[in-house]
Amino acid sequence: MTGQAYDSNNIFGKILRGEIPCHRIYEDADTLAFMDVMPQSPGHLLVIPKAPSRNILDADPAVLAKLIPVVQKLARAAKEAFEADGITVIQFNEPASGQTVYHLHFHVIPRYEGLALKPHSGQMEDNGVLAANAEKIIGVLGN
Amino acid sequence: MTGQAYDSNNIFGKILRGEIPCHRIYEDADTLAFMDVMPQSPGHLLVIPKAPSRNILDADPAVLAKLIPVVQKLARAAKEAFEADGITVIQFNEPASGQTVYHLHFHVIPRYEGLALKPHSGQMEDNGVLAANAEKIIGVLGN
Repeated sequence: MTGQAYDSNNIFGKILRGEIPCHRIYEDADTLAFMDVMPQSPGHLLVIPKAPSRNILDADPAVLAKLIPVVQKLARAAKEAFEADGITVIQFNEPASGQTVYHLHFHVIPRYEGLALKPHSGQMEDNGVLAANAEKIIGVLGN
Repeated sequence: MTGQAYDSNNIFGKILRGEIPCHRIYEDADTLAFMDVMPQSPGHLLVIPKAPSRNILDADPAVLAKLIPVVQKLARAAKEAFEADGITVIQFNEPASGQTVYHLHFHVIPRYEGLALKPHSGQMEDNGVLAANAEKIIGVLGN
């Protein structure tokens, strides 16, 4: 498998190092989850491993095996928190697929009947809305 | 987490029981991968667990942990087999998200610069094309 090397100077790397803030929802020893600042629907969140990899193509399989149960946990929580009708999980690899940040991430996107997704990497959401949505999911996780 | 129960009378359940054929790429004790018969791009394949679940919401986390490294393996193989520029991994949950078959599955979709995805659950691909594409991936996996 050929591909470009991981470059830690990406926005999720900066979030992991605490250099820039995020609307954090969940964290454990291996994983961080936070709100997507350009949500494709209300409640759109991201789940990332703390271990460095560019995307799924160069990830450690053991990292993936720990990550995906957290994706599930957050998918369930988001569906409940937003009373969503469904959840789309998307994971982009390389620019041709739509990847824009080169640290492995899974999108967890609540879906609502009759509401089309907004474009990927579209418009910035208001910080207050993101903070409130993070709190909704945190509330469900705490139950 | 509330949701509908798994119904084994779905097309992937039938494939797993050998009641209908598929263009098989990979199989192990827990997992099956085969070509999507309505590909959104050349090489579009599906990875499913043998264990029953409707989607990610009701899956056993241990099943997911075994499944995702196979998704990775097939993503790498498909990228190489088709000299794709990227890979999109998508997993739909419930009708509002676009799910049409109610057995958990991950879509592995090769992406090519300048080639937009065809619609999900669009047009049936020719069987000969699907068979040839399966062989390309099997060839890479065997290397």
